[in-house]
Amino acid sequence: MDEFALIERFFASRVADRADIRLGIGDDAAVTRCDSDTELVIATDTIVEGTHFLPGTSAHAIGHRCLAVNLSDLAAMGAEPRWCTLSLTMPDVDPDWVDAFANGFFALAERYGVALIGGDTVRGSLAVTVTVHGCVAPGAAIRRGGARAGDLIYVTGVPGQAAAGLRVLRGPTAGIAADAVEKFTYPEPRVAEGLGLRGLATAMIDVSDGLAVDTTRLLAASELGATLELGKLPLDAVGADDALALALTGGDDYELCFCIPPECEAELVRRSAGWACQVTRIGATRPEREITWLWEGRPCDAGGAGFEHFPARP
Amino acid sequence: MDEFALIERFFASRVADRADIRLGIGDDAAVTRCDSDTELVIATDTIVEGTHFLPGTSAHAIGHRCLAVNLSDLAAMGAEPRWCTLSLTMPDVDPDWVDAFANGFFALAERYGVALIGGDTVRGSLAVTVTVHGCVAPGAAIRRGGARAGDLIYVTGVPGQAAAGLRVLRGPTAGIAADAVEKFTYPEPRVAEGLGLRGLATAMIDVSDGLAVDTTRLLAASELGATLELGKLPLDAVGADDALALALTGGDDYELCFCIPPECEAELVRRSAGWACQVTRIGATRPEREITWLWEGRPCDAGGAGFEHFPARP
Repeated sequence: MDEFALIERFFASRVADRADIRLGIGDDAAVTRCDSDTELVIATDTIVEGTHFLPGTSAHAIGHRCLAVNLSDLAAMGAEPRWCTLSLTMPDVDPDWVDAFANGFFALAERYGVALIGGDTVRGSLAVTVTVHGCVAPGAAIRRGGARAGDLIYVTGVPGQAAAGLRVLRGPTAGIAADAVEKFTYPEPRVAEGLGLRGLATAMIDVSDGLAVDTTRLLAASELGATLELGKLPLDAVGADDALALALTGGDDYELCFCIPPECEAELVRRSAGWACQVTRIGATRPEREITWLWEGRPCDAGGAGFEHFPARP
Repeated sequence: MDEFALIERFFASRVADRADIRLGIGDDAAVTRCDSDTELVIATDTIVEGTHFLPGTSAHAIGHRCLAVNLSDLAAMGAEPRWCTLSLTMPDVDPDWVDAFANGFFALAERYGVALIGGDTVRGSLAVTVTVHGCVAPGAAIRRGGARAGDLIYVTGVPGQAAAGLRVLRGPTAGIAADAVEKFTYPEPRVAEGLGLRGLATAMIDVSDGLAVDTTRLLAASELGATLELGKLPLDAVGADDALALALTGGDDYELCFCIPPECEAELVRRSAGWACQVTRIGATRPEREITWLWEGRPCDAGGAGFEHFPARP
């Protein structure tokens, strides 16, 4: 089966019908329409075997993951997903593999109403690049750099759980719940939560490289410091002895870290009541550029390789 | 040097300033603005070492190529380039290599006013994916499927010349001009020509897989047949004994094949006077779905592996 037959069979036939798509797959390019009262939000991410997923990962999970990590970027901007392109590089063309990949990809795409509008399939080492397009009202994109001093800092879900799941996949491990593996293998982009934070969050980032580095990025962009209470994190749900280290540096969480003004806390409680994940207040920003991580009331080092400095969970 | 320092050093500092970019590199996603009187044109292509360029190709040429092949897709829609994203997968981070790559990439990007708005750098086998965004007036994108029976068929430049250049790169070859190597190594997307064909061309495709298959795709999309006079092609400029086979199946030309109504021929002559490349009328469409390839007045087989049926050039 050649490349074009492959595209036709597995992808073009499953393209979603959206009124804002003038021309989908099958020409030199796609043509879409953007309302005058919206701005476009565009993100791209590549996942590579061995770096972003383990060799032997199911095609279905890879299909899910390549889109999920991109939708997570849109979520972190408070953007509504619209369209995506897919570039699929494979060492050979196995129709069963591609079928399973497409099933994983489209199951997620359909859940969030994002339409595949173009792509490329080429021969090479397994890698997938997705570019996603979403929209926001003009000026409404939630950036990393919008937090103000005194804003409260929150994180969705259970940071560290994905890293715990990865550990299970790598070998025998006790004490980690089965849903951690699911959390690593099928990360759920916080699209609804990101949309729910429009007009409320002053700054937001998706937590993909660990809470420590991503929170630091948000604060750096906002030119602020913060005091963070690590004991607030839902570490019991991670289920690992070193849950705190996993939360801070494990990566692959695809949760949202965001700030809101302190007077908006009740509104956040109201909005988050219907969310599929918990939301945890972990600290507050402050004007000095210093970040203080507290554990049981005492400052500790959450930077870089400093995690051996943390006490193990009792 | 880590991934983020790399991006900052080579890419973020060179981002073009465009009024329609609200937020460029450095957040979870980019934010752009689209006028209400335009439609978006989006294309994506991946190039992989060994498939799309020879091992040992200079980083500068790879940087040029990954964008050129994408701009060629926009050109084939008659779209004006605006923004792009870049995903760069490399086995290791060599600052000199990345610097040369960026120089090749931005030299072309700046020539066409296309701004880099986001991307990703990951570790893996060398591969580059670019997604380009352009714009057209509503309904003005030039599709493959718009030709009408009786339209004249044209091609830009010298199809086959890039394949001749590739042959030179692969080993000692006589008779092929040095500019063929340049043509293969630095394909020039026909952006100005594509824009110049707005309101004139009824159908267009970029010739990347050889004139035979790409012309066939255009005609299939337009639900038409054609009579094509292969002797009209500028084969002498290819400089190879088998110039015709190279033109029909060589690939990598990134020329434009397009149709115009017969009454518009004078207008095409007028518009193309300032183009950087020649334009050649190679035939005309007809209502029956059959494609007839003529060589010196006799039908011949230009499909698939049929090129041994062509006489060698005298």
